[in-house]
Amino acid sequence: MLISPSRRLRRTAFSDGVEAAGVKAYTSYNHMLLPTVFRSLTEDYRHLKDAVQLWDVACERQIEVRGPDASRLMQMLTPRDLRKMQPGMCYYVPMVDETGGMLNDPVAVKLAEDRYWISIADSDLLFWVKGLAYGFRLDVLVDEPDVSPLAIQGPKADELAARIFGQGVRDIKFFRFGRFEFQGWQMVVARSGYSRQGGFEVYVEGSDIAMPLWNALMEAGRDLDVRAGCPNAIERVEGGLLSYGNDMTRDNTPHEAGLGRFCSTQTAIGCVGRDALLRVAKEGPVKEIRAVRIEGDLPPCDRAWPLMDGQHQVGAVTSAAWSPDFETNVAIGMVRMTHWDPATDLDVVTQAGVFPAIVNETFWI
Amino acid sequence: MLISPSRRLRRTAFSDGVEAAGVKAYTSYNHMLLPTVFRSLTEDYRHLKDAVQLWDVACERQIEVRGPDASRLMQMLTPRDLRKMQPGMCYYVPMVDETGGMLNDPVAVKLAEDRYWISIADSDLLFWVKGLAYGFRLDVLVDEPDVSPLAIQGPKADELAARIFGQGVRDIKFFRFGRFEFQGWQMVVARSGYSRQGGFEVYVEGSDIAMPLWNALMEAGRDLDVRAGCPNAIERVEGGLLSYGNDMTRDNTPHEAGLGRFCSTQTAIGCVGRDALLRVAKEGPVKEIRAVRIEGDLPPCDRAWPLMDGQHQVGAVTSAAWSPDFETNVAIGMVRMTHWDPATDLDVVTQAGVFPAIVNETFWI
Repeated sequence: MLISPSRRLRRTAFSDGVEAAGVKAYTSYNHMLLPTVFRSLTEDYRHLKDAVQLWDVACERQIEVRGPDASRLMQMLTPRDLRKMQPGMCYYVPMVDETGGMLNDPVAVKLAEDRYWISIADSDLLFWVKGLAYGFRLDVLVDEPDVSPLAIQGPKADELAARIFGQGVRDIKFFRFGRFEFQGWQMVVARSGYSRQGGFEVYVEGSDIAMPLWNALMEAGRDLDVRAGCPNAIERVEGGLLSYGNDMTRDNTPHEAGLGRFCSTQTAIGCVGRDALLRVAKEGPVKEIRAVRIEGDLPPCDRAWPLMDGQHQVGAVTSAAWSPDFETNVAIGMVRMTHWDPATDLDVVTQAGVFPAIVNETFWI
Repeated sequence: MLISPSRRLRRTAFSDGVEAAGVKAYTSYNHMLLPTVFRSLTEDYRHLKDAVQLWDVACERQIEVRGPDASRLMQMLTPRDLRKMQPGMCYYVPMVDETGGMLNDPVAVKLAEDRYWISIADSDLLFWVKGLAYGFRLDVLVDEPDVSPLAIQGPKADELAARIFGQGVRDIKFFRFGRFEFQGWQMVVARSGYSRQGGFEVYVEGSDIAMPLWNALMEAGRDLDVRAGCPNAIERVEGGLLSYGNDMTRDNTPHEAGLGRFCSTQTAIGCVGRDALLRVAKEGPVKEIRAVRIEGDLPPCDRAWPLMDGQHQVGAVTSAAWSPDFETNVAIGMVRMTHWDPATDLDVVTQAGVFPAIVNETFWI
C-alpha cells in the first residue's frame, strides 16, 4: 500500500539523507515521516545487531517546558516521582490523564532546574501540557522547539560516536546525557534509544546542522559499515520495547502496560490521575503486557488480534513479527490475569485465520 | 513510497469496504487510515464531479462533550460566537490556543443543549479539550465515542441518500442535520462534507452497523455508478477547502487562514486566545491564504514551497495539484499583504526547481 505525500506528513531535517539511503517504507509518527524499512525488515535487523545504524527519529518531537513552574508541571504530568531527577538525567515517564489512562510514554530530559525536554511518542502531548499549564495558570513556557533527535544504534555505536564527539561519549551512563561539540555546536548526547543494541540519541538543535551531522557520521563510520536504519519491528518486539498506540493506548493504565515500576503514586504528589491509579497500584491490574509466542505464517499485525481461550476472549496481541534469531513469531499482547502465567496455551485470531499462541515467560532479550 | 501497517495506524469500521473497492494509497489522519486514491487522482476527481461516492472519513474522530458545562467549554474552545447555535446545527469552529494559534478547525455538531460532538481535523484536540476541562474543573464528560463518519459526496448524493434514508434527507439544509433511520438505528445525517460537490456526512454510531450501511449504499446506488472515493486532492484545492496541517498550523491565526469571518472575538466571551486575537481582528493579518496558480510540471507538494519575489520570500505554497478542468496547477498558499493582490507575479521554489506562480483572485469554484 502506498503512502500519499503531503506537507501534513512533515519531512524531517534528515529526510534528504534517508531518501539518499534508499528508504523503502514510512509510517507517520507525530505528523512526521518515520522510516520503517531500508533493505528489508530482516536485513535491517541483522545489520542493527551486527554493526551500527543512523536513525532519523526526528519524529520524537520535543516539548520544551521552561520557567519557574516547570518542575511542578512535570510532576503533574507523570506518576513517576521526579524529586531525585537532576540535570543531566533522562527519565522514562508514563503520562496519564485524570482517569489514569496513558496519553504518552515519553522520555523526559532535564536540561536545568527550570528547563526540560519531553521526547514524545506518537500523540499530540503538547496539547495536554498546554491545556494543563493554561488551566492551572502555571508560570511556564511550553513549546515545540526545532530539535531533531538522531539515534546511533548498534554494537558499534560507541566507536562511531567517539569518532565524531570524542572519547568522552563512551563514559555517558545509561539514560544520562552530556553536552558535546560538533562543528562548533553544542549537542545533547544521551545514552538511550529504541533498541536493545545500545547507543545514543543526539538531540540536534537547529535543522541546519542536521544533514552535516548525518553526513559526518556516515563518512566517519564507513569502515564500520554504518547504514541508515530505523526502529526495527522485529528487534523491538524481541526486546519488549512497547510502542504507544500499538501496545497500549489511552484505554490502558501504566500498570497494565507493565510500567508499574515507574509509578510512585504514593509519593508523586500533584500528579494528575493519582486518585485513579492509587487503587490499581494497590490491587494490581487485571490484565498486563506479556511476551507471546505464536506459531505459523502470520499476516502483518495491522490491528489488535483477539487472544482466545476457546470462545472466551482473554486478551489481544498488538505487535508481532517473525524473529530469525529465535525462530518463532515474537509478539506483544495484553493478557488477563486468569491466563497470563507462562506457558498458557491460547489461540490468536488474525485476519488470516487462527494460530496457536503461548504466553512466554519473558521477552527474548 | 510504501506505508507500513501497524495497529497504531488504526483501521476504520469501513476499511473492509475500502479494501474491497481497491484502495491504492492511504494517508494517516488522527492515527487512522484515510484513503487517498482509488483508480487515480484524476479518475476519482472526474467521478466525484459527475456521480456519487462513499467516503470512509471515520478518521474525522468525534470528541463528545457532555454535561452542565458543555456549552461553556465549547465557547472556551473557539472564537466563533456560539450563542445562537441550536441543536440540529453544525458550526465550522476554528479552535486556538492562548496565543491565537490554530489547534484544529473542526465542525461542531450540537446534539442537545448539553451535548456536542466535535468532528476533528488531524490533531489530538481531545488532549487540549481534556486539559482545559480538567484545569478549569468543568462539570463535563469528554471522550472519543465510537462514531465513524461516512460521507456521501457528489451531484447524485441526494438521490442516493434518499433511497436509504427516505425523501426527508433532501430537505436537510446546509450545515444542519437530522436523525434518520437505517435498519432500526437512528443516525445523525448532516448536509456537509469535504468537497464542493454537495452531499452528506452520516455519523455512524457503533462500528457494527458501519459495513451494513456501506453495503446498502453501494447496492442502492449501483445504477448511479456509486463508487468508493475519498477527499480528492485536486477538487479540494480548486474549491479552496483548507487542510489543517497542510495549509495552516499552530503557527497561524484563523485570520491568516482566511477564517476571520468565523471569529467574533468581541462577543465570544470566555474564548481562550481572545486577548491575542483582539489585535489581529482589529488590524487584520499581515499574511493570508490565497489561491495561487502555478505553471509547469510540478512535483508532489510534500513540503511548504517558498513563494519568492526575487530574493525575498513573501509566502509559501502548501497544497498544489494539476486541475484537468481549469487546465492549470491550482494551489493554496499563504502570502504577505505586500504581495497578495490578484495577478501578482511570483516564483515558487519546489524540490524540482522554480516555477512561475500568480496570485489568483478567487478559488476555482
